[in-house]
Amino acid sequence: MTDSKMANKKLLLLDVDCGVDDAQAMMMALAAPNVQILGITCCHGNTTIDNVCRNVLRVLKVCRGTEIPVFRGACRSLLGQTLNASDYHGKDGLGDVPDPNSPGLEHVQTEHAVNAMIRIVTEHTGQISLVAVGPLTNVALAIKMDPTFSTKLKHLYIMGGNMEGRGNTTICGEFNFVSDPEAASIVLNQFACPIYIATWEYTKRHFLPWGFFHEWINQGTEKACFMKAITENSVKRMKIKQSDKEVHRREGFVSCDSFAVAAAIDGSVVTEYMQCGVSVELQGELTRGMMVLDTLNLQKKQNRAFIMVKCDLEKLKQLMMSALK
Amino acid sequence: MTDSKMANKKLLLLDVDCGVDDAQAMMMALAAPNVQILGITCCHGNTTIDNVCRNVLRVLKVCRGTEIPVFRGACRSLLGQTLNASDYHGKDGLGDVPDPNSPGLEHVQTEHAVNAMIRIVTEHTGQISLVAVGPLTNVALAIKMDPTFSTKLKHLYIMGGNMEGRGNTTICGEFNFVSDPEAASIVLNQFACPIYIATWEYTKRHFLPWGFFHEWINQGTEKACFMKAITENSVKRMKIKQSDKEVHRREGFVSCDSFAVAAAIDGSVVTEYMQCGVSVELQGELTRGMMVLDTLNLQKKQNRAFIMVKCDLEKLKQLMMSALK
Amino acid sequence: MTDSKMANKKLLLLDVDCGVDDAQAMMMALAAPNVQILGITCCHGNTTIDNVCRNVLRVLKVCRGTEIPVFRGACRSLLGQTLNASDYHGKDGLGDVPDPNSPGLEHVQTEHAVNAMIRIVTEHTGQISLVAVGPLTNVALAIKMDPTFSTKLKHLYIMGGNMEGRGNTTICGEFNFVSDPEAASIVLNQFACPIYIATWEYTKRHFLPWGFFHEWINQGTEKACFMKAITENSVKRMKIKQSDKEVHRREGFVSCDSFAVAAAIDGSVVTEYMQCGVSVELQGELTRGMMVLDTLNLQKKQNRAFIMVKCDLEKLKQLMMSALK
Amino acid sequence: MTDSKMANKKLLLLDVDCGVDDAQAMMMALAAPNVQILGITCCHGNTTIDNVCRNVLRVLKVCRGTEIPVFRGACRSLLGQTLNASDYHGKDGLGDVPDPNSPGLEHVQTEHAVNAMIRIVTEHTGQISLVAVGPLTNVALAIKMDPTFSTKLKHLYIMGGNMEGRGNTTICGEFNFVSDPEAASIVLNQFACPIYIATWEYTKRHFLPWGFFHEWINQGTEKACFMKAITENSVKRMKIKQSDKEVHRREGFVSCDSFAVAAAIDGSVVTEYMQCGVSVELQGELTRGMMVLDTLNLQKKQNRAFIMVKCDLEKLKQLMMSALK
Repeated sequence: MTDSKMANKKLLLLDVDCGVDDAQAMMMALAAPNVQILGITCCHGNTTIDNVCRNVLRVLKVCRGTEIPVFRGACRSLLGQTLNASDYHGKDGLGDVPDPNSPGLEHVQTEHAVNAMIRIVTEHTGQISLVAVGPLTNVALAIKMDPTFSTKLKHLYIMGGNMEGRGNTTICGEFNFVSDPEAASIVLNQFACPIYIATWEYTKRHFLPWGFFHEWINQGTEKACFMKAITENSVKRMKIKQSDKEVHRREGFVSCDSFAVAAAIDGSVVTEYMQCGVSVELQGELTRGMMVLDTLNLQKKQNRAFIMVKCDLEKLKQLMMSALK
Repeated sequence: MTDSKMANKKLLLLDVDCGVDDAQAMMMALAAPNVQILGITCCHGNTTIDNVCRNVLRVLKVCRGTEIPVFRGACRSLLGQTLNASDYHGKDGLGDVPDPNSPGLEHVQTEHAVNAMIRIVTEHTGQISLVAVGPLTNVALAIKMDPTFSTKLKHLYIMGGNMEGRGNTTICGEFNFVSDPEAASIVLNQFACPIYIATWEYTKRHFLPWGFFHEWINQGTEKACFMKAITENSVKRMKIKQSDKEVHRREGFVSCDSFAVAAAIDGSVVTEYMQCGVSVELQGELTRGMMVLDTLNLQKKQNRAFIMVKCDLEKLKQLMMSALK
Repeated sequence: MTDSKMANKKLLLLDVDCGVDDAQAMMMALAAPNVQILGITCCHGNTTIDNVCRNVLRVLKVCRGTEIPVFRGACRSLLGQTLNASDYHGKDGLGDVPDPNSPGLEHVQTEHAVNAMIRIVTEHTGQISLVAVGPLTNVALAIKMDPTFSTKLKHLYIMGGNMEGRGNTTICGEFNFVSDPEAASIVLNQFACPIYIATWEYTKRHFLPWGFFHEWINQGTEKACFMKAITENSVKRMKIKQSDKEVHRREGFVSCDSFAVAAAIDGSVVTEYMQCGVSVELQGELTRGMMVLDTLNLQKKQNRAFIMVKCDLEKLKQLMMSALK
Repeated sequence: MTDSKMANKKLLLLDVDCGVDDAQAMMMALAAPNVQILGITCCHGNTTIDNVCRNVLRVLKVCRGTEIPVFRGACRSLLGQTLNASDYHGKDGLGDVPDPNSPGLEHVQTEHAVNAMIRIVTEHTGQISLVAVGPLTNVALAIKMDPTFSTKLKHLYIMGGNMEGRGNTTICGEFNFVSDPEAASIVLNQFACPIYIATWEYTKRHFLPWGFFHEWINQGTEKACFMKAITENSVKRMKIKQSDKEVHRREGFVSCDSFAVAAAIDGSVVTEYMQCGVSVELQGELTRGMMVLDTLNLQKKQNRAFIMVKCDLEKLKQLMMSALK
C-alpha cells in the first residue's frame, strides 16, 4: 500500500490476548474498508502467550490478512501472576476446535511486541490508534521503555475496567484489569493521549439478542463458519453462566472486545461518553484491580478519559455483520 | 404507655449523628403514629458528640418528645479519626441557628449509649428495629460488647455506603462508612438480623423537587419553622455543591437519613430491593470505606443484605409532610 | 485488705488469654508479695474465651487466689477473625491435662470484662498498672467505651508485637498482635499512659536454659507439679519447632507473658529500653499486624512507647522460682 | 581485550543511579584488576536520569574508563513516582561541584539500557554478574522484556532493602526499594539466579571510622581529589543527619553501594550470609516498600536470597583504598 492510500485510512495497532471475542474484534477491524492494521501485538490473558500468537495467526489466515506482522509480547503480568479464562474461551483460547492447517509460531516476528509497538508508533507519530483489548501489560511496558510513547499516539482504545464497581472476575474487578492491575494503573496514570474505555458494565448492558447472534454466525461464508465453530463451546458456557451467576440476568450475547474496536473504526458507534479521571485500585483486599471513576474530580487529573456510556447498537450490528461477510 | 399499646407499635431505636438530615429523619419517626421510639443513641459524625447530643435534645423538645431517653456514645471512630461535615451541616451540626432555650447536656442519660442499646434490645428481644443513620461506631461496639446483640434485633436499617462505587466524601466512599470503615465492616460481616441499606446512590437518585421542599418548610407549623431555620444555610451550600462538583448534576433536595427511617416506619416505601452479600473495603488506597456488593455471590455470605433500589416517592413525601405537621 | 495495705502494694489488672505462658505469668504475679491483683479479665487468643475463663479459675485455685474476681471479655477480634494456638498450648489451652475438680464457669463474674476494667480503673484512678498479655481486644474496647480510660491508668504493660519485623505467626507478625491488629493499633495510637512492651524478639532473645526449666518445674511443690503437668506437651512441641522452623535456632525455654508481668512487678528486671513511636500495620499483604517502630521519629508521636531491649535474667529467674514456691 | 583475557576476569554489568556512593562503588569496580565492566546502565534514583548519565560519564573520565558503554534507562519508577535524594547527594547528584569539562549526554549510547542489558547478558550467557545499586526499575524491565533474562545471569548483587524493618526513607523502607517497590518485588519474586543483598541495616552497621574516610580522600591522587570534592557537601549533611535523626547514633562513614560491588568483586568480603526467601511489601500503609524476610520459610520460595550479615571491614577498606589510587 502506498503512503497516499494509507493517508486516507485509520491506522490501527491491535494488542490482543486472542480468545474468542478478540477474534471477533480482529475480524471486525480486518473487514473495515477504512482501516489499515499495521501490526498485531500479543499479550497473555485469555490463554497462554503461545496460544494467543497461534490464534492470531489463525484468524489472519481465515481473513486473508497474513501480511500483517504479528509480535509476541508479555507472557505474564508485571507482578508475575496469570489468570486463566479457559472456562470461557476453551483450553486453546479459541473454543477447542483446532485446525491442523493453522500457521505455526515460526510466522511470529522476532522483534519483541513492545519494541515493535514503539517503532511503529514512532514511524507514524500522531497517526496511530492503539486498540488494546487484553491485559495492558504490553501497553504499560511500551511507556516504560519509551516515556514519549503515548504522546506519539493519536488515540488509545481500551476494553477493560468497570464503571460501577461490578466485576466479572473478582467481586469488583473486570478480567483484563484484574489480570494486570499495575499495568492498567500505569496506562491510566501515565498516558497523555486521549483514552476511550469500553468497560465491562458498558459491554454487558449493550448485549445483543441471541436471534442476531444466530443470524450472524449462519451467514454461510468461510468466516461465519469459522465463527460458528469457535463460539460453539463458549456460547454454551456463557448461557449457563448467565443463568447461574448474575444478579441481573440479561439474556443476550456480548462480544466485549468488539466494542473497543468498533469505537476505533467509527466514533459514531458511541453516542454518549462520560469524561472523568480514572485510576486503578492496587491495594484493596476486595477491590484490587477495580477501575475507579473520580466523578467528583477530587484528583484533578489532567488526562481525563472518555468512558463509553451509550452505544448505537444498529451500527454495532452492521460492523459485526460485515466482519463475517 | 402500657405493654399492650406497645405491642401494636413498631419499636425503634435510633442511632444518629444529628446533623440536619438526622433531624429530618428523627422528626419523621417522632410523628409516625405507628412507631414507639425507645431511645436515641448519639454518635460522632456530622458534628462532635457534644453537638450531636445537644441537637437531639433540641429536636425532641421541638417535637414534644423529651420523655425519650438520649444516650451519649462514641466520640471518634474505632481507629480514632474523625471527619468533619461542618461545611454542609454547619459548625453546630444544625445549621448554625442556635436556640438559647435548648436543653443542656445534663438531660443526657448517664448510661453509655452502647450499654443502653444492649439493655433495651435485650429487654425487647426480637421486637426492635434499630435505625442507624450515622457512622456505625456505636452499633459495631454493641456487638463487640454483646456477641448476641444482633440476634435479638428484629431489623437493622442503615443509611450509608454505596452501590456503584461513587462516593460523596472520598472518590468511592460515602460519608457514614468512610467515617468509620471498620465499624461498618463489623456490622455488615457480623450482624445476623435482616439488614436494609439506603445507600448514597439510592438517596441521591430519589431527590425531591425544590418545589416540594419549599412547600414542606413553609407549612407554618412550629416544626416547619424550625426546619426552615436549620436548613437555610445547608440548602444554600448544597445547591452550590451540586452545580460545582457532580458530573451528573441533579436538581433537587435529598434528605439521606429520612430514607432509612421511612423504610423502617413503612416497608412499602421501598418498592424494589436487591439482595446480596455486602462488605466494606478496609485496605484500598482509593477505595477504603467503599461498600462492596458481591453481585456474583463469590463470598457466599450467609446474611445477604437488602439494598434499597426503588422508592415510592409519593409515600416518602407524605411521611415527610406529616413530620412537620 | 485495708486501704492502707493496698497503698503499699502495686495494684495490677491482668488481661489474659490463658494458655500456658499466661498461667506462668499469672502465677508470678500471684506470688509477688508487693502486688495486689484487683481482677483478671479474659480475652480470646491462645484458646476459646470459655477455655480462657476456666483456665484462669483453675490457676487461681492452685494459687489460693479464688477471691480475685474473673471477668469474661471478647470472644473474637474486632473484625471477627480468631486464630488458633492449640498446636502449642493444647486444645484446652493448658496442655490438655484436665482436672475434674476445676471450678466451673459459674465462678465468672456477670459484669463484662470491659465494663469491669473501666469501673476498677476509675475507682483507683492513677494507681493501676494494666498488664495485657493476650490479644488487645478488651483493652481497645475499654478506651472506645470510655475515652478517658487510659488517662486513669498508671502504666500499661504489653506482651506482643515485634521490633525487627520477624514474626512467629505470620512472616512479620507476632501472635497477639496478629490476632487483633485493629485492637493493637487502637491501643498504641490512642492510649495516653506510659506503655511498656515486651516484643516477641525481646522474649525470644532472653530464652532460659532447659536446665533451669527442669529445676523450676521439679521443685516438688503443688504449684510446680501443676506447672510440670501443663507444660509437658507444649514443651515437647516447642523443642521440635525450634529444630524445624527457625533460621537462628536458639536452644532454650521462653515464657513470653512472664516478661511483661515481671517488668510490671519489678521495673529493674528490664535493664535497657528503647523509646520510640510505635504503630501497627493494618493494610499490608505480608505485614498486616506487624508492629512498626518509628526509629526516625517521622510520625512525631506524642506518646512514645518503651520497648524492652535488655533483661536481667537473674532477676527474672528469681521471680519465676518464687512463683512456684 | 581478547576473549581469553576476558575469561579470566569477572564480567560485571553495573546498574546505577549515580549519586555519591554510586560513584564510590563504580570507582572500586573500575580499579579492580580482576574485573571487566561490560556496560553501565543508568536509572533514576538519587537524581534525575539525565544527571545520572552525566555523572557516570564524569566518573568514567576521571577513571580513564570512557571506553565502557553507558546506557540510559528508566526515568521514573514503574508506577510513575520519583523520590528526591538531593538533600544528601546534591542537586546534581554528585555534590554540586560541577566540572565544565565533563562529557556531555551525546556520549550515551542510543540503545535503551534495558535492551542493552538483555543483549549483553545474552551474549555472555552464564558469565555476567549484574550489580544493581539503584532502584530496580531497569532490572525489573529486563525480565519483563525477556523472561529468560535472569537464567542467563551468573549472579545478581543488590544494594537495597532492609532486614529488620528499619528504614532510612520511610519508617520501614530503604531508599532504593521505596523508590520502586514494584520493581524490587518483580526482581525478588521472578529472578532465578543467585541473589546477594546488601541491606540498609547491613551497610549502616558496618560504618567506617571518620579517620579512615579522611585518610581515604586525602591520598592526593586525581581520583582522591575528585572524591574529596564530591563528598564535601554530602558528608557534612550526613553528619548532621546522624546526630539529628537516628535513635542509635553511629559515628562513622557509610558508602552503601560499595558493599554490593565489593561482594561482587571479592566474595570473601562477606563473612556471613543468611539465606531466606525475601519479598517486598507492596500494600502497606506504613510498610510499603519494606523488604520482608521469611525466616520461618512460610512461603516456601524456591529462590532464597543470600542476605549479607557480616563484612570483613579490612578487605573492604583495602578495596576502597585501591579505588582511589
